[in-house]
Amino acid sequence: MTGKNYIGNKLSAKGSKTFKTFNPQTNSENDTVFTEATTDEIHEAVSLASEAFKTYRTVSGENKAHFLNAIADNIMSLGDTLIQTYCSESGLPEGRAKGERGRTVGQLHMFANLVKDGSWVEASIDTAIPEREPAPKPDLRKMHIPLGPVVVFGASNFPLAYSTAGGDTAAALAAGCPVIVKSHPMHAGTGMLIAKAVIDAAEQTEMPNGVFSNLNSSGIEVGEQLAKHPEVKAIGFTGSIRGGRALYDLASRREEPIPVFAEMGSINPVVILPEALQSRNESLAKTYANSITLGTGQFCTNPGLILGIKDENLTKFIINLSEEIIKIDPSCMLHPKIAEAYQKGRIKASEQKDLHIVAEYQHEVKQNYARQTLTNVSGATFLKNPTLHQEVFGPYSIIVECDDAEQLHQIISKLEGQLTGTLIAEDGEAKNYSQIVSALQNRVGRLIYNGVPTGVEVCPSMTHGGPYPASTDSRFSAVGKHSIKRWVRPFSYQDWPNELLPDELKNENPLAILRLVNGKQTSERI
Amino acid sequence: MTGKNYIGNKLSAKGSKTFKTFNPQTNSENDTVFTEATTDEIHEAVSLASEAFKTYRTVSGENKAHFLNAIADNIMSLGDTLIQTYCSESGLPEGRAKGERGRTVGQLHMFANLVKDGSWVEASIDTAIPEREPAPKPDLRKMHIPLGPVVVFGASNFPLAYSTAGGDTAAALAAGCPVIVKSHPMHAGTGMLIAKAVIDAAEQTEMPNGVFSNLNSSGIEVGEQLAKHPEVKAIGFTGSIRGGRALYDLASRREEPIPVFAEMGSINPVVILPEALQSRNESLAKTYANSITLGTGQFCTNPGLILGIKDENLTKFIINLSEEIIKIDPSCMLHPKIAEAYQKGRIKASEQKDLHIVAEYQHEVKQNYARQTLTNVSGATFLKNPTLHQEVFGPYSIIVECDDAEQLHQIISKLEGQLTGTLIAEDGEAKNYSQIVSALQNRVGRLIYNGVPTGVEVCPSMTHGGPYPASTDSRFSAVGKHSIKRWVRPFSYQDWPNELLPDELKNENPLAILRLVNGKQTSERI
Repeated sequence: MTGKNYIGNKLSAKGSKTFKTFNPQTNSENDTVFTEATTDEIHEAVSLASEAFKTYRTVSGENKAHFLNAIADNIMSLGDTLIQTYCSESGLPEGRAKGERGRTVGQLHMFANLVKDGSWVEASIDTAIPEREPAPKPDLRKMHIPLGPVVVFGASNFPLAYSTAGGDTAAALAAGCPVIVKSHPMHAGTGMLIAKAVIDAAEQTEMPNGVFSNLNSSGIEVGEQLAKHPEVKAIGFTGSIRGGRALYDLASRREEPIPVFAEMGSINPVVILPEALQSRNESLAKTYANSITLGTGQFCTNPGLILGIKDENLTKFIINLSEEIIKIDPSCMLHPKIAEAYQKGRIKASEQKDLHIVAEYQHEVKQNYARQTLTNVSGATFLKNPTLHQEVFGPYSIIVECDDAEQLHQIISKLEGQLTGTLIAEDGEAKNYSQIVSALQNRVGRLIYNGVPTGVEVCPSMTHGGPYPASTDSRFSAVGKHSIKRWVRPFSYQDWPNELLPDELKNENPLAILRLVNGKQTSERI
Repeated sequence: MTGKNYIGNKLSAKGSKTFKTFNPQTNSENDTVFTEATTDEIHEAVSLASEAFKTYRTVSGENKAHFLNAIADNIMSLGDTLIQTYCSESGLPEGRAKGERGRTVGQLHMFANLVKDGSWVEASIDTAIPEREPAPKPDLRKMHIPLGPVVVFGASNFPLAYSTAGGDTAAALAAGCPVIVKSHPMHAGTGMLIAKAVIDAAEQTEMPNGVFSNLNSSGIEVGEQLAKHPEVKAIGFTGSIRGGRALYDLASRREEPIPVFAEMGSINPVVILPEALQSRNESLAKTYANSITLGTGQFCTNPGLILGIKDENLTKFIINLSEEIIKIDPSCMLHPKIAEAYQKGRIKASEQKDLHIVAEYQHEVKQNYARQTLTNVSGATFLKNPTLHQEVFGPYSIIVECDDAEQLHQIISKLEGQLTGTLIAEDGEAKNYSQIVSALQNRVGRLIYNGVPTGVEVCPSMTHGGPYPASTDSRFSAVGKHSIKRWVRPFSYQDWPNELLPDELKNENPLAILRLVNGKQTSERI
């Protein structure tokens, strides 16, 4: 572990600014010294990416699949070194590390299959009608092509699945875009191991140098320079609203604005209807105590807001959930800074007028461990105080007691955009609350019925995104095969000679992909 | 013709600021006095749209199709009144008015068919696997849902097809988004007639009040207020880079940023290869003289930049094109302000160092008519001077003589984003210029072979958009059925009860639409 940057396939450490990662479980620094990328190194990485794009954009789906599969294989070959590094830089348990590795590798294989199959380009062909009056109809053929070099900012809470070779990177590489990763400083070692896996895979499968770079950074400067670089064409980010918005602002103020897909904060409202509270009070309390504390509450889909209509069953639920949640053993947060931010967030929330702390883990906890906390306010108080709508990143949730369905509706209508919304209801109960469901749908990217928001299935039908500030552009998803659409644009050829067209659009359909030909889906040749 | 605003289905003129439209052919004002919308009226229109969205978003595809078809019918029923008003407010000939009306009505029918068919929502279903280890797989179902109220800014150069009920509006209404049109001041009368057609259609087909509003405005204030309004969720714009960028900046600086699809300026580079110049010099000159002057050069796809490699045939082409272009009778521009801007643009260009005017219509022209102009510079001069890269809106084009293929490649690589790029080549010639074609592809949304960029076919395979500043987001198209994607977002239901799902996602597939079910395209029920 050298602590150097990967500028394309070359290790480089020209800078003087260094940093180390931290093990929150042992409350001590890890050994490796990482060297932050310099302005020169940033330019070099972007120039290489821009040059690599010229050839990488036309690499066949089959060869891109080899590349992506080789990354997955190389990640698995890292074996225990990766798992140990991951744990030492995140405080997360081994089981989680392995689970997340499985997800990461699974995503790489998913995109490999997608580009190998090839139909993802949504090829569309409208053949010419030369005899049309008053003007002949030209031949038009369209497909998705890659945007150009993409910068990926990894997430603190997913050192693998949403970081160096996570969903953003896998989708961008699959699309044909070179990737420059702004490595997350909290897990720079994990990032470096993965970067080596990617670089090795690129060399093994003969991808152009510069198709991937990994830049260390401990502050905001490297990210800022990347976001402003004229040859960077898109940005993927997973993290805080503050960080995502800052990048969005930089990108939208460029001479040439570029798309930023930032997946940011969310409090993931959960609406529990009265009949469900009556019939399943205790089991719901158990389920939600687990969901709130899962991964020390460090999931972007953590249920941070529970909404119910004031009655004796809701009171009982507050007691049950309080009892259940304090039974759970506290766990370690990702980093002292995150533990500190959680502590501050909890205190800030608890200082709000008319808020009651109904449960808080009281026994001694280890350094960097989080005390799960549950608070409670009235609907009127929640409506009045926007501070209560803010995410407290960690095992924290607020239960809001609404006066009636009308107030519940009002609260939901005024929520900021969210990744998810959950409805807990008995059979037949939901249809009496259609206005509430409709309002909830308008604020979220995914609606869950009688479940928990934590757990993001990787499949085509998943939407992981939502209205701002859940994401900076609700028209895309960060998860699933359609997340590739963030990094591509439609492109049309008019009257282009068949032999000069890309394979996807040739008459003979050599890739045998599904295409829209004169309005009909078909994989036939023309 | 009352000159009032439509605030939903109500005529309203609370303001004191008024204006008239102008007939550039007669060089005189038209009669109707239009009243600019006030802040109150703007708020009322947006509130109504927001309220209408609650029901309009769930209107069935079939009913939306009735609405869109009724708009088309009502537009046709306006008959000669519409054509006369169009001509008196644009200076464009009757044939063009009728052609554009046909295109507008055609687009409305196209979107009606699209939503009636229903498959456009890209329904995707992944059924549950309860027995999966280690965790059960939930049932996930995804489809496109509308964003919310959309504001449409009409174009000066397309009073029908890109304005009040043009492509942006038709796509947004088809998606399920209410529309507020910021009417273009140059053709406010045409806009008002069309607005009445839309409002009447909304009433005939029982759409909610507020699904459409039409606001008059002569300056920038109404547009600014609309762009900043928290209940507006997206913006469509066709016009200048300056106007589009201003809207993009307003929208991206909001507390909740919203997507802006602005289709803006373009000089549409045309590369003519040496062999083509040798064999088709005269016919190419004729073709391009027509394309440059078509619609008085007031098309966003006007060929404003012609690139060739210096040789005797290019010199001959400059002479031939010059001769052909001055043979064409000058025509009227849309408005005295546009004629004036063209005049200024021509003068500014002609004052640039080392630029030669090779053709300019010399005879007397009527007021507001444009003198077609052709200029010529060396590749080196063009590379040095970014002013020469700017669009001169009107019948103007610049021919660049490159030293060699290398310089041609360099020029193309440094161009700003463009709607189109055209390659003129003999059989087999293009393959020797693959680097140039590749660079051109990277700068444009559509490549044309041996044709002209003017003429935008409305079909699924069309891309009308491109890298900035051709548009603010190259990932979308302003034309064709896929342009609906600008106004929708993916939305997922997890474990949602079948009876509460929208028809598009129900097991029984009552709409018989094409869906992706467990990875397979099918219209079968589950």
